[in-house]
Amino acid sequence: MFTEITSPSNSKIKEVIKLRDGKHRRRSGRFLIDGIREIDRAFCCGIKILEVFGNRETINGFSKKFGRELFHNGMFYLISNALLEKISFGNRNEGIVVVAAMPDESVDLFETKMRTVSFPLLAVLEGIEKPGNLGAIFRSADGAGLNGIIVADSIADLYNPNIIRSSLGTIFRTPHAVMNSLSAIDWLRQHKIRCAVSRCDAAMPYTDYDFRQPTAIVLGNEAEGLSDIWNGNNVATISLPMCGIADSLNVSNAAAILFYEAYRQRMR
Amino acid sequence: MFTEITSPSNSKIKEVIKLRDGKHRRRSGRFLIDGIREIDRAFCCGIKILEVFGNRETINGFSKKFGRELFHNGMFYLISNALLEKISFGNRNEGIVVVAAMPDESVDLFETKMRTVSFPLLAVLEGIEKPGNLGAIFRSADGAGLNGIIVADSIADLYNPNIIRSSLGTIFRTPHAVMNSLSAIDWLRQHKIRCAVSRCDAAMPYTDYDFRQPTAIVLGNEAEGLSDIWNGNNVATISLPMCGIADSLNVSNAAAILFYEAYRQRMR
Repeated sequence: MFTEITSPSNSKIKEVIKLRDGKHRRRSGRFLIDGIREIDRAFCCGIKILEVFGNRETINGFSKKFGRELFHNGMFYLISNALLEKISFGNRNEGIVVVAAMPDESVDLFETKMRTVSFPLLAVLEGIEKPGNLGAIFRSADGAGLNGIIVADSIADLYNPNIIRSSLGTIFRTPHAVMNSLSAIDWLRQHKIRCAVSRCDAAMPYTDYDFRQPTAIVLGNEAEGLSDIWNGNNVATISLPMCGIADSLNVSNAAAILFYEAYRQRMR
Repeated sequence: MFTEITSPSNSKIKEVIKLRDGKHRRRSGRFLIDGIREIDRAFCCGIKILEVFGNRETINGFSKKFGRELFHNGMFYLISNALLEKISFGNRNEGIVVVAAMPDESVDLFETKMRTVSFPLLAVLEGIEKPGNLGAIFRSADGAGLNGIIVADSIADLYNPNIIRSSLGTIFRTPHAVMNSLSAIDWLRQHKIRCAVSRCDAAMPYTDYDFRQPTAIVLGNEAEGLSDIWNGNNVATISLPMCGIADSLNVSNAAAILFYEAYRQRMR
């Protein structure tokens, strides 16, 4: 059932290492998942696992846990610990690395998934750059039960190992679509979803906004904030109180506060 | 008024570079501040600036802005851009780096500062490790107007350049003390400040806790959570709802939600 690989110059190993590069990920439509918890969550969220590289113990554990019958022959590669070190991210060798297929991030699929949601609570992330922030936002969105995320004008792909890690694998759960900001605004308008845009200079405190209506919470780039296209009649600007010397919060912290305020209001 | 330094082997330059090392910072009681905004904030928050290294323009700007009379002779060092690159953190050369004295983080001074606060809202950070998290928590604490922070069982000093940067200089504003967790619990008990401890398995949703009473919001290490000493009769355990697959949030996101819920309740 296992194919054993011993040479670091094996083409499969070379291919895995290439997937650490974002360009190669995008070109091939494949990415790597490190970490047992993240791999578990990816699998449970329906991410298609293409190849599994591990030692005998972890491969056995993986195939038993999810049922051997789900896997085709030739997808398990037994490799040494030395090779595992080589293909793992940073110093994160948990005995297993998998190659997965990038999921469908199209508007069409997102549209289909949103059809069953009555009062959607979404987030739009425009140009957020830091993997740690993106991952933490997906984690908070999962915690607060957001229905979906639109990743707009994104610079990188979401399948950077730092994003997967800082999301603790929640990146695989909340439905998301990738589009540019203009398409996002159009899509939200078409679906009668109001935008709640967080700006330092907005007059309305975020706690006065009614998050029970269909809403997309819009968050911008760490340094530049949101682009000008987020001014318009479908848009409410809201602000977080800033009592001290700073005029803004870290974007993932702002996101967490807004997501959980929405949750609080919706549970009342 | 300026002493010009041109050689990279000048002892002052060597001394500055050594301050990038945490051990040397702790031994000398000095640290570096990069970034114009962070330096401004440090100065405005009463951090004692000992030496200024910059090009003619930034040194002039700095001394004019804060009033020349505040500075003693021999504290300004005019250096070339090449030397600035050498002493700046990472690729963050904004034309100025200052050496500052570590502020007093003793319980005594903290005690004095807290004396004027009637219904304190504090945070206790136990063993938080990631500079980005520590900085973001100080930033949110500044935003939500917390009265003070107790840094308990800290592994690093707070004057790591990544903490200063991710706090955007707010690290200099909120009064804080460094002590171990046992002393923190004693101190809070003595001052009749209740602990609200965030735990995944707690029965009480955080929104049911009355944050208008004197409260310390207690947050633990990223991977290990809080130590067992945070179980006791002065302690209320509260939880954040987790609607998805993850059982916890990033610690700085959890902190932000709790700080702003406390603010919301106190403003009602």
